[in-house]
Amino acid sequence: MLFGTSYYPEITPESEWKQDLLNMREACLDTLRILEFAWSAIEPREGEYQFDWLDRFIDLSHSLGFKIIMGTPTATPPPWLTTQYPEIMVVGRDGQPYTPGGRRDADVCHEIYQHYSVQIATVLAERYGKHPAIIGWQIDNELMGPEGVPPESHSPSAKFQFRQYLKRVHGDLGTLNQRWGTRFWSQEYSDWGEISTPQNKRSTMGQVLDHSRFFSERIRHFIQLQYDAIRPRVEKSHWVSTNSTGVFNRGMDHQDWASILDTVGWDSYFSTFFGSNALGHDLFRSAKHQPFWVFETNSLPEPITPAFWGEMLAHGAQGIIIWHWRNHPANAENETQTFCDWGGTPDPRRVRFMQDIAARAEFKSPIPSTFPRAKVAFLYCPDCTRTALTPDPYILKRDEVPYVSRMQKVYQVLARLGVAVDVIQPGTGLEGYEMLVMPSAQLLSEEQGERIREFVGQGGTLLGVAKTMHKDEWGHNYNTPGAPLADVLGFEMIRNRTLPSTSDSLHAKLGDQIIECLPFVETVTAITAEVEASFTDGIAAGCPAALSNAYGKGKVYYATACSEGLVDHLARKAAQRANIDCYETLGERIAIFPAPQGDGTWLFNHSSSPINEHGVKVPAGEYIKLAPKEMNALKINK
Amino acid sequence: MLFGTSYYPEITPESEWKQDLLNMREACLDTLRILEFAWSAIEPREGEYQFDWLDRFIDLSHSLGFKIIMGTPTATPPPWLTTQYPEIMVVGRDGQPYTPGGRRDADVCHEIYQHYSVQIATVLAERYGKHPAIIGWQIDNELMGPEGVPPESHSPSAKFQFRQYLKRVHGDLGTLNQRWGTRFWSQEYSDWGEISTPQNKRSTMGQVLDHSRFFSERIRHFIQLQYDAIRPRVEKSHWVSTNSTGVFNRGMDHQDWASILDTVGWDSYFSTFFGSNALGHDLFRSAKHQPFWVFETNSLPEPITPAFWGEMLAHGAQGIIIWHWRNHPANAENETQTFCDWGGTPDPRRVRFMQDIAARAEFKSPIPSTFPRAKVAFLYCPDCTRTALTPDPYILKRDEVPYVSRMQKVYQVLARLGVAVDVIQPGTGLEGYEMLVMPSAQLLSEEQGERIREFVGQGGTLLGVAKTMHKDEWGHNYNTPGAPLADVLGFEMIRNRTLPSTSDSLHAKLGDQIIECLPFVETVTAITAEVEASFTDGIAAGCPAALSNAYGKGKVYYATACSEGLVDHLARKAAQRANIDCYETLGERIAIFPAPQGDGTWLFNHSSSPINEHGVKVPAGEYIKLAPKEMNALKINK
Amino acid sequence: MLFGTSYYPEITPESEWKQDLLNMREACLDTLRILEFAWSAIEPREGEYQFDWLDRFIDLSHSLGFKIIMGTPTATPPPWLTTQYPEIMVVGRDGQPYTPGGRRDADVCHEIYQHYSVQIATVLAERYGKHPAIIGWQIDNELMGPEGVPPESHSPSAKFQFRQYLKRVHGDLGTLNQRWGTRFWSQEYSDWGEISTPQNKRSTMGQVLDHSRFFSERIRHFIQLQYDAIRPRVEKSHWVSTNSTGVFNRGMDHQDWASILDTVGWDSYFSTFFGSNALGHDLFRSAKHQPFWVFETNSLPEPITPAFWGEMLAHGAQGIIIWHWRNHPANAENETQTFCDWGGTPDPRRVRFMQDIAARAEFKSPIPSTFPRAKVAFLYCPDCTRTALTPDPYILKRDEVPYVSRMQKVYQVLARLGVAVDVIQPGTGLEGYEMLVMPSAQLLSEEQGERIREFVGQGGTLLGVAKTMHKDEWGHNYNTPGAPLADVLGFEMIRNRTLPSTSDSLHAKLGDQIIECLPFVETVTAITAEVEASFTDGIAAGCPAALSNAYGKGKVYYATACSEGLVDHLARKAAQRANIDCYETLGERIAIFPAPQGDGTWLFNHSSSPINEHGVKVPAGEYIKLAPKEMNALKINK
Repeated sequence: MLFGTSYYPEITPESEWKQDLLNMREACLDTLRILEFAWSAIEPREGEYQFDWLDRFIDLSHSLGFKIIMGTPTATPPPWLTTQYPEIMVVGRDGQPYTPGGRRDADVCHEIYQHYSVQIATVLAERYGKHPAIIGWQIDNELMGPEGVPPESHSPSAKFQFRQYLKRVHGDLGTLNQRWGTRFWSQEYSDWGEISTPQNKRSTMGQVLDHSRFFSERIRHFIQLQYDAIRPRVEKSHWVSTNSTGVFNRGMDHQDWASILDTVGWDSYFSTFFGSNALGHDLFRSAKHQPFWVFETNSLPEPITPAFWGEMLAHGAQGIIIWHWRNHPANAENETQTFCDWGGTPDPRRVRFMQDIAARAEFKSPIPSTFPRAKVAFLYCPDCTRTALTPDPYILKRDEVPYVSRMQKVYQVLARLGVAVDVIQPGTGLEGYEMLVMPSAQLLSEEQGERIREFVGQGGTLLGVAKTMHKDEWGHNYNTPGAPLADVLGFEMIRNRTLPSTSDSLHAKLGDQIIECLPFVETVTAITAEVEASFTDGIAAGCPAALSNAYGKGKVYYATACSEGLVDHLARKAAQRANIDCYETLGERIAIFPAPQGDGTWLFNHSSSPINEHGVKVPAGEYIKLAPKEMNALKINK
Repeated sequence: MLFGTSYYPEITPESEWKQDLLNMREACLDTLRILEFAWSAIEPREGEYQFDWLDRFIDLSHSLGFKIIMGTPTATPPPWLTTQYPEIMVVGRDGQPYTPGGRRDADVCHEIYQHYSVQIATVLAERYGKHPAIIGWQIDNELMGPEGVPPESHSPSAKFQFRQYLKRVHGDLGTLNQRWGTRFWSQEYSDWGEISTPQNKRSTMGQVLDHSRFFSERIRHFIQLQYDAIRPRVEKSHWVSTNSTGVFNRGMDHQDWASILDTVGWDSYFSTFFGSNALGHDLFRSAKHQPFWVFETNSLPEPITPAFWGEMLAHGAQGIIIWHWRNHPANAENETQTFCDWGGTPDPRRVRFMQDIAARAEFKSPIPSTFPRAKVAFLYCPDCTRTALTPDPYILKRDEVPYVSRMQKVYQVLARLGVAVDVIQPGTGLEGYEMLVMPSAQLLSEEQGERIREFVGQGGTLLGVAKTMHKDEWGHNYNTPGAPLADVLGFEMIRNRTLPSTSDSLHAKLGDQIIECLPFVETVTAITAEVEASFTDGIAAGCPAALSNAYGKGKVYYATACSEGLVDHLARKAAQRANIDCYETLGERIAIFPAPQGDGTWLFNHSSSPINEHGVKVPAGEYIKLAPKEMNALKINK
Repeated sequence: MLFGTSYYPEITPESEWKQDLLNMREACLDTLRILEFAWSAIEPREGEYQFDWLDRFIDLSHSLGFKIIMGTPTATPPPWLTTQYPEIMVVGRDGQPYTPGGRRDADVCHEIYQHYSVQIATVLAERYGKHPAIIGWQIDNELMGPEGVPPESHSPSAKFQFRQYLKRVHGDLGTLNQRWGTRFWSQEYSDWGEISTPQNKRSTMGQVLDHSRFFSERIRHFIQLQYDAIRPRVEKSHWVSTNSTGVFNRGMDHQDWASILDTVGWDSYFSTFFGSNALGHDLFRSAKHQPFWVFETNSLPEPITPAFWGEMLAHGAQGIIIWHWRNHPANAENETQTFCDWGGTPDPRRVRFMQDIAARAEFKSPIPSTFPRAKVAFLYCPDCTRTALTPDPYILKRDEVPYVSRMQKVYQVLARLGVAVDVIQPGTGLEGYEMLVMPSAQLLSEEQGERIREFVGQGGTLLGVAKTMHKDEWGHNYNTPGAPLADVLGFEMIRNRTLPSTSDSLHAKLGDQIIECLPFVETVTAITAEVEASFTDGIAAGCPAALSNAYGKGKVYYATACSEGLVDHLARKAAQRANIDCYETLGERIAIFPAPQGDGTWLFNHSSSPINEHGVKVPAGEYIKLAPKEMNALKINK
């Protein structure tokens, strides 16, 4: 595995480069990620390039044995560009253009911005594409639209391209009008030019969904433009990638982008929400079934532990880059986390941590080149996230618990039980999976419904958690929620609008247990399904909370509310049915993870307590203790 | 009484119309409210009309015995119109035009929007004005300016017309300058063209008041334009109306609009705030002293009860329309409440509820054509609401308890005591009323003050609740608050700025009782009045909290703080003096309502408990029990 | 001492002037502050002046013995000006110009606004510069940029002048690029015209700091323009000043403005935060070491006490003006506090209060013309405030306790101990001071660091409180925080990013005491310093919380967290070392203040309890009682 750090030679005095690099080696770092924001440093005026300093830095790094990941600096167009062409800035929902001076505020839809971006990427690839220090290329940085708001641009360019996108997807205006439901408020379009981006607060869901898909596609297109500039100009051994961020909550389709990249990666900062980093790792490993990069992760020592690092390795990382070595003493991010102080002195705790990691046997094992499919697929629907991107205040008010939280809750249960998953998206084939986990898949097309039906019918095990299939891909509610899968699920739903819930929590009775559930529930009537638990309060009191149903050769386990307790119960049954090992839960923040390459099982203690002193039986039958008050990550060979 | 539902044939497959209509009949619904958003469905491109589908729908409905209320679809101009003329959109206070795609975002002040609105109304009236199925016309939908913000437009058209309005009202600039108090911050206008709409945060109160009055008048004008297009083209038996909303909190003058309409109505959704639906009903019944329409009410069964429906009938409704039958599976309002699921299957609970209602004798009685005046008038001042529409953050911060809440609190007391009222506005003559209730009439002109003086002097009974007459019609504070009525009230006020109150609640002592009061109090010195209660804490500790005063042949009862306890005490005394029956309060959410037509008294149990099992004495001397755990509405013949 | 009131004759009927003036005399008020908003009253159309009414008012006032402070009305340009030249309005960060109609919304950077402002000031000075009633001139009103937002304008004029400012300060673009750290995100400027005002959310700290300094300078320039128009045209005895507001939290440099004014003053409204009014007084007295004006203070009687007024006198006020006598019955500020009701009747409580104050011997003593330096200097850094003006949401989120609160906390301790201070700013020479108090001086230039080193080295006593010297004057972090002063302080800091603190409070152990500290702490290692207290919890648990260090001939006392307990402990030691008397703390809200002119000591009981009945030893050895339940201010001669 490669360990590295982001480094900004352009803001560091040249006289200090060598000492910095020597300090990195001391800290067992051998990979550099550079240049992502350095546009003005290499092209201070249009067409005037300054590469001398960069040549010297790369040569120096090479001479000291460093590998380099080269970024294209397109996230930060220089003032000479934004001053000449202010029209390349993102336009906000309020119709106002962003002002230059930050980052990621330029509009990926704009042809002038695209032109200059391709040009700088080309120049870089031409100059450094054969340099022996370089191992890969990172396109732009954290492509996600402007910070802090939903991905968007409402510029004339974006509007023009949105219309082209819509023509391609819907073919004719009649179809679009039907799918978006424009007839209800007289919004039927009689001309493509009448269609705009969703700036109005009451924009229809179809427009919001399409705009998010469009914007994800536009970013993919922007990636493609740079990919096509770089790929033919660089060594075959070099990979070209981009670093993803805002993974689940912005409607971006990272697996779609993966399809045009050589390798994938993301910026994985420590989350206190148990399992959420691992879920991201699984998404990126599953994108290509290959090792992925962690392009950025914390340099802070406090919450960073062997368990956190071991988790990256176990889930398929091939390299981990710390953000970042040292920062500029001023500028926007001057107080963010770094390995060193502003003067370049490394923090000894950080050095010790890296030395400790690098010395561990696990991190020295070879990285597999591909991973087999897991036995279990875990469905993530970007479209479900997209429904929450609506600007409609009435809809936003209703959504008590966001989709991503519901999905993470379910993942947490699996992580504790030791059920390893691939994260798949609608469109991924289900062949080869024994079991499908489908948390809160509110929006599913009929086509995807058919895939699920077929999967179960042919013997698959489905673990479903509410809400399921309330809307289709254009945001249309099915006449009855879940109806296209009613026979598979074995129950019928009552139309159940997401009214403000009357209580903060709801409960279900499962055997003798009273189990807490998140507020939204589906009110269902069992048809062929067996009821395993029922609600004790709320609007669905007395109705089924957990059910199981045989369909074809397969079987469905379903919770009509998102609930750790119910999901835990059903997941165990489902795993047993699908012949998947699962284990006793060792604690709230303890994960068991069978390695995707099949050569062992990992135990991660993310809690602040030791795993109990008398030893705990782990999968392979051994007993193990984890030192008290320490987090740890262990690989247990079968 | 007519029962109906809003229905959108334009978004429903034609093949399902008949079944929908048959289902409605099953649910005892015989009136349809249609077309309010269907502009693009009947005029998909400018001047190209599509009426075939609508002809067929109306004929089908007619053949099945339905009555139809026809809406003009002007709340939702189609894209061909807003694309050609983007200048018809409302301009917000920030100077930015609204983007098309929602509803009610077009500017009633704009002549091009007016032109097309009149044209579509004309075309509809021409075509369907003689159709036997049609009973009435609804102009636009919920005319109230853009959703979520105060009614406003700051477009050039609005500014031009505002200046014309001001010329008419104030005559000359000197008068306007004096009334608005522009001299204080050098804002004296020397030219009409210098005056704008209140976009600045510190706009004077006079400008805010006039702008709200202006906007209410502009909406009336917009109604008038359509009324004049429809009226001469349709059967005499047809009425022309509009459905009001945002009744008390947006500064719109619904009684003023009523003066140009054939009948009135409003959208009355269930409020958990006891009495607030009834207060609205009284406003609209009192507008013309005729039965009114409930153009929209909930289809949700859960909080909807016989008491809620009986209240509409008792207060003077002639028809009740449920919103709505079924909705489009997508579009902005696809998850809102309906009678059916998206596929058109009616919810059996809703059907049963309607069958139950329709079977009750009360709902079968004939509707009177007019109502006599009540004995009691209840004063609602749109101008008092308007003072809260100021954008001034300093003023907004001060207003601890809004005017509308204060007004509702007083109304609640009357509803529990069985004191039926007409809701009147400043300008309504007081002749014929025995008693005037005047809650928190902070803003009153001297002219209105004179009317009140005359009313009391000639023998009337006045029940007043703080604040009274602090400001005149231009927002000027009287030198001393309440001064023009000081002799009538029998006390003098001390100038008492609405400082942030030091405590959340204040108390008064009335006999042996300690009574809670809302924070703002008037600090007064009794002159001729008798003190009935005094404050025990707060800045007015020791000062009178309740007083009574003889003036001329009349009598005044007054609470210097808004307080249910004080108002209850004074209202009983006032009613007794005015020879108006009132009764023991049966509970927090139990209303007694003597029917305005004088043929009985209603009892509404809006609580979730039964009225006690041993029977309760009701007005006519009978004893009655209301079934436990049920709401009910009963008409008791004298 | 002079007592006065703001009065607006332009909005008061001329027939009531005389009675108003007589009423003022009754209330012991003899100074009038007029005309600050009266532009349209004296120039209703461009170039048409109306002075008759003003002549009459001034003559009348003079005949009744009043002194007059004349304001220039430039805070409120009239509609004829803003209609002709809408471009003079402030442009907000969102790029939208302010709309006319309020106040202080015109752009001090705009040359047209400057032109008309100078012209009206000139006309006034020409006409009234020799009038015997006039004693001084107030330029504009509360110059601070638009209300409610950070001082700013993003107009083209502001941008142009900002660039000129930057050229002057930085000389060349390379220097600016280096200081602002623009290279990090490719924001290196290659042309001055590329630089804008900080509209982007992620604007660099250097840009934010420079923009705030620039805006403070622009206001000084605007003051200078009017000063130069007035000064040569008026009597020598007249002073020219302006009334400051938003003193500590808007980044304005009031001591810098003081350098071009004849006398200074501020608007000092009662704050419940103990000591914060006194801190403001000290800033303005220290600006010129002369008496200052309180140009506005509350007219409300409730919280206004002899202690509050005595504090103004004791800290160096030469005159106190109440805001305001009576207000216009309408207009934006019609409900604000006044001496009279809207009709002009004075509130008897206010009259009694003023008569009581005027009768006290203390207020009759002569006002000194200058004040000597105090023994103790208290450092206020406008730049530290400026760092909080950044629009960057990431930085704003981090700053748990604002600089101004930290500074006030330290001042509170000194006020209770009786340590009188001059408030100085970076750049003020330290010669003559025995002790320097330096609370949370996060941003200090190396030059300022050298001054402090020299001060301590030569024998001075330094009382420092975290954070100290983390950033330099361009917002650059020092390689290690506090490094340039490490030898003076006797300890080294660990780089310690302002992470969200894990707890709301932290604790330190000092001897046997457990002392509460505000969340942010500096983690330090003592080198030569002695540790006096250590943290018991938090990320710095076990590290020093209070230290003392000998350096050269001087001594440093330092708290690594802001904490009243730690500062109290260290301040006593520091005062003792510096031979400054300090006393037992008498209570939370009791201040002891040795008069700056050295003729006594004041005791202010701002609490609502009496000082205890058995007598308390005060500085001069006497015992004193303050009446129970009363605030009081006493001057105790030595």
